[in-house]
This record gives sequence, C-alpha cells and structure tokens, in this order.
Amino acid sequence: MPTSTATAVWDGRLRDGSGIYRAASGAFAGAYTYKTRFEGAAGTTPEELVAAAEAACYSMALSANLEKAGTPATRVETTARCTLGKVDGVSRITTVALTVEGSVPGIDAATFRSAAEATRETCPVSRALHGNVTITVEATLT
Amino acid sequence: MPTSTATAVWDGRLRDGSGIYRAASGAFAGAYTYKTRFEGAAGTTPEELVAAAEAACYSMALSANLEKAGTPATRVETTARCTLGKVDGVSRITTVALTVEGSVPGIDAATFRSAAEATRETCPVSRALHGNVTITVEATLT
Repeated sequence: MPTSTATAVWDGRLRDGSGIYRAASGAFAGAYTYKTRFEGAAGTTPEELVAAAEAACYSMALSANLEKAGTPATRVETTARCTLGKVDGVSRITTVALTVEGSVPGIDAATFRSAAEATRETCPVSRALHGNVTITVEATLT
Repeated sequence: MPTSTATAVWDGRLRDGSGIYRAASGAFAGAYTYKTRFEGAAGTTPEELVAAAEAACYSMALSANLEKAGTPATRVETTARCTLGKVDGVSRITTVALTVEGSVPGIDAATFRSAAEATRETCPVSRALHGNVTITVEATLT
C-alpha cells in the first residue's frame, strides 16, 4: 500500500507564530500563519492543501471513469474551493466546491455531468471527506 | 469564511497520462502520475497533499491547545504518513499516522500525550476525515 509523507512545524504561539509544511518527496513546501488561515491574508493554508488533494484526486478519477466507460477524456481540469467555517463555535472544513471542465470526444453533456457527479462521491479523497464535508460539483464539457 | 483554492489538470489516460496541481496562492505546484500514486515511483501524490494538510493543521492546533491550557509550546513538529489502500476492491485513504515532537516548557510527558491525543480528534482536518480515515498519533516531548 503506497504511503505518502509530509512534515509540518509550528513555531511559537497561535496569533504571532508561524508554520511551515514540507512534502517528503520534495515536491512542495509552504509557510502559513494565523492571518493566512483565519483572516484571509495572502498566502497558503492547510485548506489549500485539501483543495489541491481533492482537485488532483478528482481530475484523475474522473478521467479514469470516463476511460472505463469507453469515452476517454483528453483533458480534465478541476478547481476546488475549500472553505473553513465555524459550526457551533468549532472551526470546521465545511465545503469543497468543485468546478470541472472536460474535453471528452464523443460524449454528450448530460453523460459527462453524470460521470462528474458520480466521481464526486467516489474518488478516494472524496471518500475520505464523506459525511463531514459537503462536496459540490459544477461540470462543463468543453 | 476563508476559502482556499487549488486547480488540477489530468491529461490523457490513466496509465500513461499525467497530472499537475497548483495552489491559487502560488505557494506550491506538483506533477503526479499513476506510477507515483499507485506504484511507489518517486514523486508526489494527492495523498502527500492530505498528509501535508493534516500535519500543518495538527501542528497549529496542538500548539493552540497547549497555549490555551497555560503551557505554550515553543515548537511542535508533526510528520504525517498517509496510506492509500484497497478496501473491498475500492481505493481508499485508510490511515494517517502522525508522529509529533513538542518542545513545551513546564509540562510533563503524560499531559503532553493527552493534549496530542485530544488534538488528533479535534483539529479541523482531522474532523474532515473523521469516521473515514484512521488517524493515529505517537507523541514525544523533547
């Protein structure tokens, strides 16, 4: 079973401290703070990593599902918007909103939308968030 | 409510195609393939992003919880290992295994471990994975 690893360090207190995350593969790293995460300051957040994970997993899975159905896509592009909210005073990831565009020869818009909808529930990252985070998808055939 | 955005493109078929993910903040980008994700080839994966999200969120939240308890940490470092497995023939993220080291003046090891354990269940990314992914934590006071 493939295992992927990353490390993060938080230095100092919540409001004036700072964090750094790093992928073990060396592919990425980023710095985050209370202000980037909770006050909309420019910069990255853990939620941006969740958005990237869902977008990456979803694009790959939708492509695989379309191929399995006999109508392989040439390109699938997904944007994920991950929102951190408060529910009963507790910080929670409330939604991941997906917008997907697919280039898929020989498919009609309704069939594409139906594949996009099915993948929303079944790709591995979506399954990991199931029941806790509302995932929506808006699909366009290009 | 803060919203974080990322985009991913999958080009081509599952086995010989390739993906790219990008953070809207510009903080990171990475390229992934079937081989990096399912066959252990060197490189990044969506699961590495999940590992980074959990490690980043957990380090920040444990630090915040220790501060709230009156024993602020000077440093919290967390490594997250995210495993993609097959359950009944379906690809699923099965576990995120956390290893955390904290530098926390004036705390004893048992109290630190108890804070580490509580944060495992309550940080926002852990809540997003709750019930779907087994999260474990091994905590050491340094």
